Amino acid sequence: MSNPSAAMLVIGDEILSGRTRDSNMHHLACELAKRGIDLREVRMIADEPEAIQSAVKALAAAYDHVFTSGGIGPTHDDITADNVAAAFGTTAPQRADALALLAAHYARQGMEFTEARKRMARVPEGATLIENPVSIAPGFTYKNVHVLAGVPTVFQAMVASVLADVAEGAPLLSQSLRVMRGEGDIADPLADLAAAHPELSIGSYPFQQGGVFGSNIVIRGSDGAAVDGAMRELAALFPEACE
Amino acid sequence: MSNPSAAMLVIGDEILSGRTRDSNMHHLACELAKRGIDLREVRMIADEPEAIQSAVKALAAAYDHVFTSGGIGPTHDDITADNVAAAFGTTAPQRADALALLAAHYARQGMEFTEARKRMARVPEGATLIENPVSIAPGFTYKNVHVLAGVPTVFQAMVASVLADVAEGAPLLSQSLRVMRGEGDIADPLADLAAAHPELSIGSYPFQQGGVFGSNIVIRGSDGAAVDGAMRELAALFPEACE
Repeated sequence: MSNPSAAMLVIGDEILSGRTRDSNMHHLACELAKRGIDLREVRMIADEPEAIQSAVKALAAAYDHVFTSGGIGPTHDDITADNVAAAFGTTAPQRADALALLAAHYARQGMEFTEARKRMARVPEGATLIENPVSIAPGFTYKNVHVLAGVPTVFQAMVASVLADVAEGAPLLSQSLRVMRGEGDIADPLADLAAAHPELSIGSYPFQQGGVFGSNIVIRGSDGAAVDGAMRELAALFPEACE
Repeated sequence: MSNPSAAMLVIGDEILSGRTRDSNMHHLACELAKRGIDLREVRMIADEPEAIQSAVKALAAAYDHVFTSGGIGPTHDDITADNVAAAFGTTAPQRADALALLAAHYARQGMEFTEARKRMARVPEGATLIENPVSIAPGFTYKNVHVLAGVPTVFQAMVASVLADVAEGAPLLSQSLRVMRGEGDIADPLADLAAAHPELSIGSYPFQQGGVFGSNIVIRGSDGAAVDGAMRELAALFPEACE
């Protein structure tokens, strides 16, 4: 049985313009890998209705899970909820349960519950709310799309909340060997090793250190014994490797 | 006349598994923004022939430029050149000019020019080589696709080389104002300002600092006077803003 698959959709002009460096992708990649959910594709797009709808349609059809980040705040450029809904032919009205959560929060804080803040209650009918312990305004899961905030602390809390409820696969195990030889020297034996272990993913990542070329060789797979065995073969190929 | 558009395709299992944190996207985003080339979409995919071919086809058809990173080294998992070529119905044989560059380099270094290293000379007929001052193995431009290395120092050198030759647009100018008020308090006047300036992109990015909510408001556009004018209106709306 293969692992569940996932894609991520990062929504925001500020990422594409270089103003903000996205960190949510790397966090999600690590959390999914730990749980055996295969992150297969990431897309980063602007805050534009057509771009959001067409990406949501394509990714939701191709993968078991889609995680979006960004665009669910109160301002005019926060249009993710409406366009995720539109991708499925529905709408995201201000929903009573989300309004109640937010109203209670702002009452506790002694802050006005403005029309703008009410925009954060836009949730499609049939969606499940995702808890936001940081700043209350919820995300939501609609069909196989998990709509999360872009602010990293909130994104991380929401990822934890979603992942507590989804089916996991066999976690991806990995071992790596650092070899002080350039890729051109190790490529042939490495290709043979990869061909002998089609069930494993064997990758090589070059680096340069003090003018010397080296490679990190990573063996990944779901079967721990298979990874161990291939790593022993690899170590025998390059006995001078440092640990 | 609108600015040239661009997309980026990050190729590599190691990014999707969380092993490596991509930094090339942010570098490219900044370099393109400076030159008035609009980065409209980024995709990150695995080292898989079908994934590479279908992404290259989709992005090359939709945007003026596509920049790929990763998968052009000598090892068995370096399959970018072949699959970019295949996306256009052609192949990437080991080309004489690229072989000559590499042969001279390894001769100077006193290193063997192995079969694996010759794989780095795979370039479609009709493609232009992209110089690699760091480690010689070239990238290439084929049609509107620029195929670059994934190692950040090499990627950056190749980006500089490509961007020296492509048409620029009007650089995106931006100014920002930091307001110590939450987005819910500023959303309504901000929406009015955005509606009054459809030629500008006005975004709001919330933060929390010492328990207090604030927002960075960013005004972006190609017309400096328009950005200045909108920034003056914005500053008048929130006179308490710190600089």
